[in-house]
Amino acid sequence: MTKIQTIADRLQMLREELRREHLSAFIFPTSDPHQSEYTADCWKGREWISGFNGSAGTAVVTLKHAALWTDSRYFIAAEEQLQGTEYQLMKLKIDGTPTVAAWLGRELADIADKAVGIDGMVSSANSVKELITDLRKEGGITLRTNFDPLQRIWHDRPAIPDRLVEIHPMEYAGEAAHDKISRIRKALRHQHADGMLMAALDDIAWTLNLRGTDVHCNPVFVSYLLIATAEATLYIDKEKLTPEVVGYLQAEGVGVRPYDEVRQGLKDYFEYNILLDGDEVNYTLYQTVEREIVDVSSPVPLMKTVKNEREIAGFRSAMLKDGIAMVKFLKWLTPAVKAGGQTEVTIDEKLTALRAEQPLFRDISFDTIAGYEAHGAIVHYEATPESASALEPRGLLLLDSGAQYQDGTTDITRTIALGPLTEEQKRVYTLVLKGHIQMELCKFPAGATGTQLDILARQALWCEGLNYLHGTGHGVGSYLNVHEGPHQIRMEWKPAKLQAGMTVTDEPGVYLEGQFGVRIENTLLITPYKETDFGKFLQFESLTLCPIDKAPILTELLTQDERDWLNAYHQRVFDTLAPHLNQEETDWLHEACAPLTMNHEPK
Amino acid sequence: MTKIQTIADRLQMLREELRREHLSAFIFPTSDPHQSEYTADCWKGREWISGFNGSAGTAVVTLKHAALWTDSRYFIAAEEQLQGTEYQLMKLKIDGTPTVAAWLGRELADIADKAVGIDGMVSSANSVKELITDLRKEGGITLRTNFDPLQRIWHDRPAIPDRLVEIHPMEYAGEAAHDKISRIRKALRHQHADGMLMAALDDIAWTLNLRGTDVHCNPVFVSYLLIATAEATLYIDKEKLTPEVVGYLQAEGVGVRPYDEVRQGLKDYFEYNILLDGDEVNYTLYQTVEREIVDVSSPVPLMKTVKNEREIAGFRSAMLKDGIAMVKFLKWLTPAVKAGGQTEVTIDEKLTALRAEQPLFRDISFDTIAGYEAHGAIVHYEATPESASALEPRGLLLLDSGAQYQDGTTDITRTIALGPLTEEQKRVYTLVLKGHIQMELCKFPAGATGTQLDILARQALWCEGLNYLHGTGHGVGSYLNVHEGPHQIRMEWKPAKLQAGMTVTDEPGVYLEGQFGVRIENTLLITPYKETDFGKFLQFESLTLCPIDKAPILTELLTQDERDWLNAYHQRVFDTLAPHLNQEETDWLHEACAPLTMNHEPK
Repeated sequence: MTKIQTIADRLQMLREELRREHLSAFIFPTSDPHQSEYTADCWKGREWISGFNGSAGTAVVTLKHAALWTDSRYFIAAEEQLQGTEYQLMKLKIDGTPTVAAWLGRELADIADKAVGIDGMVSSANSVKELITDLRKEGGITLRTNFDPLQRIWHDRPAIPDRLVEIHPMEYAGEAAHDKISRIRKALRHQHADGMLMAALDDIAWTLNLRGTDVHCNPVFVSYLLIATAEATLYIDKEKLTPEVVGYLQAEGVGVRPYDEVRQGLKDYFEYNILLDGDEVNYTLYQTVEREIVDVSSPVPLMKTVKNEREIAGFRSAMLKDGIAMVKFLKWLTPAVKAGGQTEVTIDEKLTALRAEQPLFRDISFDTIAGYEAHGAIVHYEATPESASALEPRGLLLLDSGAQYQDGTTDITRTIALGPLTEEQKRVYTLVLKGHIQMELCKFPAGATGTQLDILARQALWCEGLNYLHGTGHGVGSYLNVHEGPHQIRMEWKPAKLQAGMTVTDEPGVYLEGQFGVRIENTLLITPYKETDFGKFLQFESLTLCPIDKAPILTELLTQDERDWLNAYHQRVFDTLAPHLNQEETDWLHEACAPLTMNHEPK
Repeated sequence: MTKIQTIADRLQMLREELRREHLSAFIFPTSDPHQSEYTADCWKGREWISGFNGSAGTAVVTLKHAALWTDSRYFIAAEEQLQGTEYQLMKLKIDGTPTVAAWLGRELADIADKAVGIDGMVSSANSVKELITDLRKEGGITLRTNFDPLQRIWHDRPAIPDRLVEIHPMEYAGEAAHDKISRIRKALRHQHADGMLMAALDDIAWTLNLRGTDVHCNPVFVSYLLIATAEATLYIDKEKLTPEVVGYLQAEGVGVRPYDEVRQGLKDYFEYNILLDGDEVNYTLYQTVEREIVDVSSPVPLMKTVKNEREIAGFRSAMLKDGIAMVKFLKWLTPAVKAGGQTEVTIDEKLTALRAEQPLFRDISFDTIAGYEAHGAIVHYEATPESASALEPRGLLLLDSGAQYQDGTTDITRTIALGPLTEEQKRVYTLVLKGHIQMELCKFPAGATGTQLDILARQALWCEGLNYLHGTGHGVGSYLNVHEGPHQIRMEWKPAKLQAGMTVTDEPGVYLEGQFGVRIENTLLITPYKETDFGKFLQFESLTLCPIDKAPILTELLTQDERDWLNAYHQRVFDTLAPHLNQEETDWLHEACAPLTMNHEPK
C-alpha cells in the first residue's frame, strides 16, 4: 500500500508541474546522460515515477493516464510491480502494443496545442530525433527537451556519485591509455573526424584504464571524455581523483575539467568537426555542438570488445576463481536444500560470500537471478526477502550470476535439479542444452554476424514449438560491464561482425509461465579455427568452468556430437578446477564431471 | 580473335561519342528500363560493349581504360570472356576491389571538369542517386543521365520485342486480375499512396494474369502498369495484344496505351501522390514524376511470392512432370555416357527434349548449367559447343536446370556420379548434402528471415573450412521468373519475412576451382508446422521430386536424422513418380530410391 500510495503522490506532483509548464505529458526513458544500461541512483527517474525497477522500460504520464513500456524479460515482474498503480503495462514486440508516440497521439487527440516533455540530457540524440518525428506525425505533437520536472518534485533525489576512481593496472589492461588514445585518433582520422565526445562510461573506463564504483555492479565512473587532435580532456568531478590518478592522467596526456563543464567544453571545441555517436551522446549535448558533426558509430566499443592477450589471460584467471566458487556452492547446495531453511535469497548470499573469498573479487557483475520453479520463468527475476521462495528438494532452480574480479568479469547460468523432476522439465532442459551445445560447436567464417549464428541455439527448441524472446548472447567486459556491444547473438539483425578475441555469452532458455524456467549459459571466447582457400574461420572456446547439471538430461535426445562435447567440456572443467579444491570438493566434482551414461544403461 | 577485335572497335566508337559529348567515362549496368534480372536483347548493352554475357556485371569505360565488375558466380567465366580485351576484371566482395565510383575517382584524378554518363532509363532511381552521391565524393565527378551512346553506335541493336501476350487462366492463377488490383489498391492505401507505377515485368504479368515471351526463359512482356485510385493503365505496344486480350483487359478494368507514352502518362497523373519503388523504377521515369512520391518498397513482390491454392496445386503438377522428365533423363544418362559421344551440350538437349514431351511445357526457366568436373566449379557455367567437355564414365556432373510449364516453374540441381569418384569428391558431396538436408529439416517461427536460417545449410561445410559465396535460396515464380523476391535465404541481411505459401530453393554447394563442383537443390514450399504458446511455427516441404544421387554419399557422415530424411524423401519420390513410369523406369527409380545402406555393410 505504501508504495502504491507513493506512486500516486508522485504522479500528482508531476501533473502539477506539467500543468504549470503547459505540457500534456512527460516521457521518462530508462537512461542517463551517458546512455548507460545500469545507471547511478540519481538518474533512476523512471523507477521513481513508476515503481518499476527493471533494467529497461519507458514510463509516460499524461494529465489523465500513465503507461509503462517494457520488453518480454520483464512482463511478469512489471505486472507485479505496477499492480495497484494507475500504470497500464505496454508489452513491447507484442501484436497490438502501440508505440509511445502512437499512444500519445490517441491520448492527446482532443487537445489543441499538444506539447510533450522529455529530459534531453537523459535520452540519446537519435532517440529524441526519432521521437520528434514520430510525435509530429501523430497529430502534430511537439517535444520539449529542456525541462526536467524531477528537479522540482524528487526532493530526496540522490546526488551524482562522487566515489574515488582507481587505476586499472597494465597487468590486466594490457595496453596503455595513451596507446589506446592513439588508436582512437587513428580510427577518427579514418572517419575524417578531428575529435570525438565519448559519453559511454565503460568506453571511458576502458580508454583510460581507470575503474570506479559509481554504478551498481558496473566498475565505471561518471564522466565525459573529449578527444581532440592534440588534446584529451576528462570531464569529471575532482573529488573522485586521488593525487595518484591526477598524476597518472597527466602522464597519459589527459587533462581534467569539472563534470558539469562539458557543455562549455563542447562550445569551446575549435576543430573543424567532431564525431558524435547519436546513439551514445545525449540530445542536449548533441545540440550544444556548433561544429560539423560526424554522426557515425563510435569506434571505441568495437576496439574494447576485441580483447588483448592480457585481458584474455585475466578472463581465464577470473573464470578459474569463479568456477571454484561455483563448485563449492553447488556441492553445498543440494544438502543445504534438503536440510531446509534455504530460500532464493539465502543461497544468493552464500554464493556471493564464496565468490568474495576469491582473490581480486570486487563486486557481483549484476543482481543474481535465482528463480526456483515458477520464479525461474520470470526471465529477469530478482528475489527479495518478501518474494523469495523457499527451496525444496525437488524441481528446478535457475541461477544466473556473475562477479567482477579485477582481472575479469564473469556471467554464468546454471539450471539445477534440486531433486526429482517432471518429464517435461527433463525434456525442456535437454532441448535447451542441445541449443547451448550447438552454439558451442559452431564454426563460422570471419565476418559472420551473431544474427547468422543465432538459430543454432534455437533449432532444437523450434522443432518442439518452443522459443525464448531474449537474445542468445552478448559481449562481456574485461572488469567492465557485463553487457558489452556492439556484437550480439540474437534473432534481430545486428551488423557487427564476430572477431577473434571477442567474448560472447551462449545462453538459450525456455520459460513456461507459472511452471519453471531453464537457461544454460557459458561465456565464450572467439578464437581462430582454421584458414583455407575459403578464408579464415573462427570457433568458440568456453571460458566458463563449471559443471552443467547432468541429472535433468535425457541422454537419448543428445546426438553423439553433443554428448562428446559435454563429456570433453566436463573433463576440462575437472582437470582445471580439481588442483584448486580439497578432497571432498574434488570427489563431488569428479562425479559431476563423469561422462554421460545413456539413461537405459545401468549407471 | 574476331570477338576481341569487335570489342576494341566498339570501345573506339564509344570513346568517339564520349569525346563528342565531353564525357570522361560511361557506365553500363546490367539492367533495363524494368530492372529485370534477364533482359530482352535490345537492352544487353553491357554485354555488347564488353563481351561478358553473365547475368550480373557493370562495365565502365573511360577514354583510356575499361573495367568490368561482377560477382563470384562469374569470376571464372568473366576472366575467360574478357581475355584479350582491354577490360580489367573487378571482383565484387573481394578485399581490395574498388567501387565503380572509387575507381573512376582514381582514373579521372587528373581531369579538371569531370562528367560521367549513364543511361537513366536502364538504371534504378536508387542506384543512380547513390552513384551521384558517390561520384560527387570522389573528387566532384558529375553524372549525366540523359544520353545513351548505344543509340548511335550499336547499329544492329535489336528492336524492343513485340511478341504476343497470352492470358494466364484462372485455373493456374487462382485469383482474378481485378481482385489482385483491389488488393494492391488496399496495400497502397495502407502506405497512404493514391497510385503506383509498376515497372517490374513479372509483377505486371502476375497482377494482370498475362504471360509473354519477350525475355529469354522468363514468361513476361515489356510494359508498364500505372495504377491509380479508379483507373489502371497498361503501357504496352498494341501489336502484342490479340483482340481477346484487349477484351480481357477491358473486362478487368485495365486501359491500354502505347509503351513509349508512359512518361506522358506520369506527367498527366493527377492524383495527390504516387508510390514509386526507387529500386524498381528507373531514374528517368522517377525524375519525370511531378507529384509527391511515396518511395517505399512495392507491395506487389510480397503478394506475388505468397502462392494461393491453385498456384500450389500447379507447382505440384509441374514438379511431377519435371520429376518424370528428370528420372527418364537420369536413367538414360549413365549408359549414354558409357557408350560415349556425350558432351555437356548434348545431355542438355536430351534433358530439354524430355521436358518438352511433358504437357503444358513452354520453355526452360533458365539456361541449363551442365558442368562436368572442373566446369562444375564455375558457378554459372554455360556450355557452348566450343567449350563443352566430353563426358566420361567417372567424376561428377553438376546439372542445374528448370522448366516453365504453364502450371508452374521448376528449378532443380543434381550432382551426379558418372562413375568412380575420388574420396574428396565423396566427402564434399556428403557435406553439401548434409547442409541441404539440415535446411529441409528446419522448423522456424513465422517472422523469421532467410538470413537467420542460412547457417543450417553451411554449418557442415564451415566445420571443414569450406563455403560457397552465393545465396542458399531464392523464391521461384508461378509460371514466372525463376528468381523471385523479396525473401531469400542468404548470409547477407534480407529483412523479408518467410511466410507460409512462399516457395524457396535450398541449394548449398562447394566449388573447387579446376577440380569439381557440387550443388544439390530442391525447390521448397513453406507450410504451417505447429502453433503453440510461443506462436506459429513453419516448416519446409520439398516440391521437387527427383532422387538425389546416393553413389557419392559417405553414409557414416550423415546423422540418423539426415539419413531418415533422405530415405523418407526418396520413398515419397518413388511413390509419387512410379505410377507415371514404365516398368524399366520404375525399376531404375526403385533402386535410386532404395534406403541408404551404411558403407561398411554389404549392399
